[in-house]
Amino acid sequence: MKKAQLFFWLWLGVSCYSYAQEDKLLDTKVQSLLSKMTLEEKVGQMAQITLDVITKGKDRFTSDEPVVLDKAAMDKAFGVYKIGSVLNTANNRARTPEVWYNIISGIQKAARNKLNIPVIYGIDAIHGTTYTAGATMFPQQIGQAASRNKELIKKAAQITAYETRASGIPWNFSPVLDLGPDPRFPRIWETYGEDVHLTTVLGIEAIKGYEGDDNDINNPYHVASCLKHFLGYQIALSGKDRTPAYISEQALREYHLPAFKAAIDAGAHTIMINSGLINSVPVHANYNLLTKLLREELGFKGLVVTDWGDIENLHTRDKIAKSHKEAIMLAINAGIDMSMIAYQYETFCDNLIALVKEGKVKQSRIDEAVARILVLKYKLGLFETPVTHYKNYPKFGSKEFEQAAYQAAAESITLLKNNNNTLPLRKDMKVLVTGPNANSMRTLNGGWTYSWQGEKVEEFASKYNTIVEALKHKIGEHQVVYVPGLSYKMDGKYFEEYADNMQEALEAAKNVDAVVLCLGENSYTETPGNLSDLYLSDLQTEFAQKIAALGKPIILVLNEGRPRIISKIEPAMPAIVQTYLPGNFGGDALADILFGDVNPSGKLPYTYPKYPNSLVNYNHKPSESRSVVEGVYNYDADYNPQYEFGHGLSYTTFKYSNLSLSAVKITENDKLQVSVDVTNTGTREGKEVVDVYLSDLYASITPDKKRLKAFEKISLKAGEVKTVKFTITKEELAFINDNNKKVVEPGEFEIQIGGLKRQFEVE
Amino acid sequence: MKKAQLFFWLWLGVSCYSYAQEDKLLDTKVQSLLSKMTLEEKVGQMAQITLDVITKGKDRFTSDEPVVLDKAAMDKAFGVYKIGSVLNTANNRARTPEVWYNIISGIQKAARNKLNIPVIYGIDAIHGTTYTAGATMFPQQIGQAASRNKELIKKAAQITAYETRASGIPWNFSPVLDLGPDPRFPRIWETYGEDVHLTTVLGIEAIKGYEGDDNDINNPYHVASCLKHFLGYQIALSGKDRTPAYISEQALREYHLPAFKAAIDAGAHTIMINSGLINSVPVHANYNLLTKLLREELGFKGLVVTDWGDIENLHTRDKIAKSHKEAIMLAINAGIDMSMIAYQYETFCDNLIALVKEGKVKQSRIDEAVARILVLKYKLGLFETPVTHYKNYPKFGSKEFEQAAYQAAAESITLLKNNNNTLPLRKDMKVLVTGPNANSMRTLNGGWTYSWQGEKVEEFASKYNTIVEALKHKIGEHQVVYVPGLSYKMDGKYFEEYADNMQEALEAAKNVDAVVLCLGENSYTETPGNLSDLYLSDLQTEFAQKIAALGKPIILVLNEGRPRIISKIEPAMPAIVQTYLPGNFGGDALADILFGDVNPSGKLPYTYPKYPNSLVNYNHKPSESRSVVEGVYNYDADYNPQYEFGHGLSYTTFKYSNLSLSAVKITENDKLQVSVDVTNTGTREGKEVVDVYLSDLYASITPDKKRLKAFEKISLKAGEVKTVKFTITKEELAFINDNNKKVVEPGEFEIQIGGLKRQFEVE
Repeated sequence: MKKAQLFFWLWLGVSCYSYAQEDKLLDTKVQSLLSKMTLEEKVGQMAQITLDVITKGKDRFTSDEPVVLDKAAMDKAFGVYKIGSVLNTANNRARTPEVWYNIISGIQKAARNKLNIPVIYGIDAIHGTTYTAGATMFPQQIGQAASRNKELIKKAAQITAYETRASGIPWNFSPVLDLGPDPRFPRIWETYGEDVHLTTVLGIEAIKGYEGDDNDINNPYHVASCLKHFLGYQIALSGKDRTPAYISEQALREYHLPAFKAAIDAGAHTIMINSGLINSVPVHANYNLLTKLLREELGFKGLVVTDWGDIENLHTRDKIAKSHKEAIMLAINAGIDMSMIAYQYETFCDNLIALVKEGKVKQSRIDEAVARILVLKYKLGLFETPVTHYKNYPKFGSKEFEQAAYQAAAESITLLKNNNNTLPLRKDMKVLVTGPNANSMRTLNGGWTYSWQGEKVEEFASKYNTIVEALKHKIGEHQVVYVPGLSYKMDGKYFEEYADNMQEALEAAKNVDAVVLCLGENSYTETPGNLSDLYLSDLQTEFAQKIAALGKPIILVLNEGRPRIISKIEPAMPAIVQTYLPGNFGGDALADILFGDVNPSGKLPYTYPKYPNSLVNYNHKPSESRSVVEGVYNYDADYNPQYEFGHGLSYTTFKYSNLSLSAVKITENDKLQVSVDVTNTGTREGKEVVDVYLSDLYASITPDKKRLKAFEKISLKAGEVKTVKFTITKEELAFINDNNKKVVEPGEFEIQIGGLKRQFEVE
Repeated sequence: MKKAQLFFWLWLGVSCYSYAQEDKLLDTKVQSLLSKMTLEEKVGQMAQITLDVITKGKDRFTSDEPVVLDKAAMDKAFGVYKIGSVLNTANNRARTPEVWYNIISGIQKAARNKLNIPVIYGIDAIHGTTYTAGATMFPQQIGQAASRNKELIKKAAQITAYETRASGIPWNFSPVLDLGPDPRFPRIWETYGEDVHLTTVLGIEAIKGYEGDDNDINNPYHVASCLKHFLGYQIALSGKDRTPAYISEQALREYHLPAFKAAIDAGAHTIMINSGLINSVPVHANYNLLTKLLREELGFKGLVVTDWGDIENLHTRDKIAKSHKEAIMLAINAGIDMSMIAYQYETFCDNLIALVKEGKVKQSRIDEAVARILVLKYKLGLFETPVTHYKNYPKFGSKEFEQAAYQAAAESITLLKNNNNTLPLRKDMKVLVTGPNANSMRTLNGGWTYSWQGEKVEEFASKYNTIVEALKHKIGEHQVVYVPGLSYKMDGKYFEEYADNMQEALEAAKNVDAVVLCLGENSYTETPGNLSDLYLSDLQTEFAQKIAALGKPIILVLNEGRPRIISKIEPAMPAIVQTYLPGNFGGDALADILFGDVNPSGKLPYTYPKYPNSLVNYNHKPSESRSVVEGVYNYDADYNPQYEFGHGLSYTTFKYSNLSLSAVKITENDKLQVSVDVTNTGTREGKEVVDVYLSDLYASITPDKKRLKAFEKISLKAGEVKTVKFTITKEELAFINDNNKKVVEPGEFEIQIGGLKRQFEVE
């Protein structure tokens, strides 16, 4: 053993020892504290309310502006009901770090009791610190996934953690680890897309960014992360938010569980529950998922919190409980530790206390839940520092942070089509910038930005550049003509839009060298973002067709939370760029790409569909893309995406060669070495994502057509060659079989990288 | 006990005794025969080939015309391989009863062997005897379901049985008992629609029509029915034929199983298996479904046949078998009795023989399968009469039968909209009849009519009236202008169409009193009928918009297999009539309705969707149609069908009153009597379907919003009142719980009839 190794093992031993010691000390502290608590105090810890409840305002749902804490309301909530947690902002509006400091220190002061248990404050800081004015806004998760850049994703989470703590908040309801296989779902943009491996790998980066590599959330630059939404949230039959999913245990384990399992293994501290039904059972009342699977099988030791109002929903919406009281009993007994009640906390606390007294909820279930809450509060350092002070966070909203957000945006933007090298544009060109997304910070950011639905973005993001503004900065004001043509109705639903000056835009198009046509969606999330027709809106389609009829080169810039179908206009668009929801620096990043200062390298994290009723993922079963069969009774099946998962062009070209395997026959415990050469065959430097797909050719249940098993993003100078190596292990070969067990089955497999294929056999 | 009752019980006793005796005798005969059979002879019985295989022609997939049996091919198939069953027609073309007689007697002669085991011939006679020229074509099942007329459905099946036997064929692959909840699926028109109760009740009528009330299939006017496609076939995730479904056991039992269970209890003799995957397992290899559920739990004693080529598919398509041989092993061991091989029977027979010899398929499994096949052949009387003679079926294609088909069409057609009493039209009006469905017998019939995809209908159905022809007969040639405007490409895919003379049609519209605009789909079934966009085609939409712009009264006549979305044109159409696929008398029935000689009484058997990505059934969960919730974070959910399940207008009006229950509190074993008065408040006689919906207000799993539990179609003269009575029993109160058990849970329920509601409690 070398000296360095020796030190490593010694260090590890000491660390483990000290961690174990710490855990034991913490446990002792928590048990001691628990023993001093009344039932009422314990139940209060399990209750989480929204900020509006304890501010002055005309009712419980709204706050006065400027926001002021309401002493009487706090006396009741904290003094009488001993509420242990608060979430969200007031009036659904971002606040400055200073206001946050004042609010949270006010709360901690009001909540200070004889046991000195601090309140834990939680927030949805999902692409930057959502509810803090001046915070750094990154691309939403879907764009981060398109970048395929693990370092950037970790960095984004680190910065978000810093800025969330700068706002006095230690708990972040992020990342989303839902698989996003459904383009209709209003939150697919909050995911890392449709692939299990991508979601798993990137999710871990985010957690490490939020909590630190060692999950040391006592560090004042770290926050507790919250995995959501456990489990199978985005696979609803109807494609709509919070509606029923039907899913087998096999599929749940094969597709939806891996990212959560990996994140739990990576030490994530909290988890939020799926608001929907699986197989007609609301997940919030599912003991099998919340206790048997999550606790007993996955060994999750952290805190389980509900989603918004979801215990109430068991009664009022999902009809499995005849009363609020029964709903509370079902959820707590299923394994919920904390209820995100939002408003009517008295109902929760009074009923839960009664349920314990009646023996319908065991005292031990309460003690277990409260212990987890107290552990989290201790670990976050809240007992010593109930609120962090914004003055200690000088890098909040700094240039350094902005640069990281810009970089993430630049690497996320995905070049979908570029006929005849339409892009990059020359900087001496005159361009018309048009479309409802051309001059909007709101659409660049999407939902969960300064407010829930994103409708207040313009108010907070005026210092950043819209697409129009960025293009003007790039090539000069005089070369850019801006006519919106269409606009979103800013106080309406996300899908409401109107033609304000379509004709004027068409006229303007006649006098320019190229048209940058910015289409897509206005901002939304959750149920208000539900959709009934995945086609791009009729009005935008009509506008695109009319512009196209003029015969000018058009660059279609898509700025959308989900892949709205463009097949009716796609053939008329020589160049298409997908920006997703790139955040506050999306306009700048796009301008650099359009004019060639940045070479695009984003790759689609989902299958871009071509038709509204042909929504098939890349890893479909063989029967979903079948060629012509023998005989006159033909059963060929048409797999017809507009663009495939992983698609994304560059201004340079890459060639793959020399795909080689270390063996053609292995046992399941062998490691298969895979190597491939990638050459930049173009004339400029570029980044390429090397994707490794694996197909299990025959299995005891029908295998997926192919599955992403590894990827690496590399940078190559013009003419440069790199050899990229991957290792395939048991983990990659395995699948969940019909008995819901993870197995490797002997037989033939096929590796596919960049159009090259090699087969091997597992004995 | 009254005398009549005494006789009944005596008769029942004697019947049971004689049935039991007969069964025992049959069993002895079958066992005796089995004992004389070689393994090769047994395996041959399990093999089913398509007719093309044994006819002269350039290859195994095609036949010469006129069709001639190929002695050498038959010697091999029957002499060497002892094939026991043949299906389908040759060259995918209908044949006259005489040709059928010659073919089948030729086959029986060639197959005659020392054991005298006849061949069993099977056919898809799904809305009349599909493959027989001159047979009576009824509305497809979806239209039959719209009629809600049990007697008509039974009668249609009786006539089909008669005409199938008139064609020498004793086995009919019908009815379809798949639930049809997915409007995208290319075979929803082969179902009774989206409701469990409707499918169950109507399915039993069809079986009784095919097999007779006592299932006496020895009767030469009866055929063996074949329930299909066991189980959960039409709920694929992608909405496409033969693609994966993900479904919980609870949902399988709650929604998909009841119709099959009831049909098995009703004595149906055979069953065909779902070609798709459920939870990644091909149903053809699913022992749990084919043996545990179907045999052990449901007690099905009849024959299990595969769908087309589906054992091969386990290897070539679904990748759960490394070879054809393994595929055969999996399927036979899972519980398949007969393989609809279609073409490559040698592969099946040789491999199955080898598998038995190797002990990989047990001899007992073979004996069990073959015994079932032989029992069926005995029961059908095939040993005595291997082929029935068309000369013994004088009512084939008779006026009497045609009248029944007309009546079924007339009661199926559904009036969806009738603003300002646009309908009925006056007979002195001049009308333009236009659209691609205006002059087509093919589109009136749909797939499975004279050929698989229906493309040969015009050739065989020239004596029946298209919509144009029927309207000319109705009001006189001079009052009807016909310009197609658009046409389907007759040798293309079902969705290919072109504008042949749209402008001419628009001109013609200017000179008439009303426009009958016939839109919809061309004929299709199975995989070739897959769809990517549920909207009515762009071209038809454009045509409808242009016609509407002229300001003439328009009657939109829909003639389509599935509800193609019409929301872009619906507001401009004052009257809309759904014909589904009404069969050869659909044109006549429509003409009678449009001009008021028949009062429409059809009711939608499915939810007609308004948007392609908002496909929610009427019995959805509460979270799918939720109103505004408390607070500023709103989660209302928009349930937005174009027309609801059960919708259908009349030329008269009905009023519901006096909904009353026999009790407000019952036990689960009580029978609840429900009664309601229905009054014809209009000025003409009409038929009304009285639907009884039940809602379980709270349950241990989330209950459906409401469920149809009973219905009755009544006829009322103008001003007439009828009291309609229903009985709610344990059966209607029960649901499948989370442990997959059928239970009644105490609590409150609500009955809804015609907008009236009453609650009651189960103690």
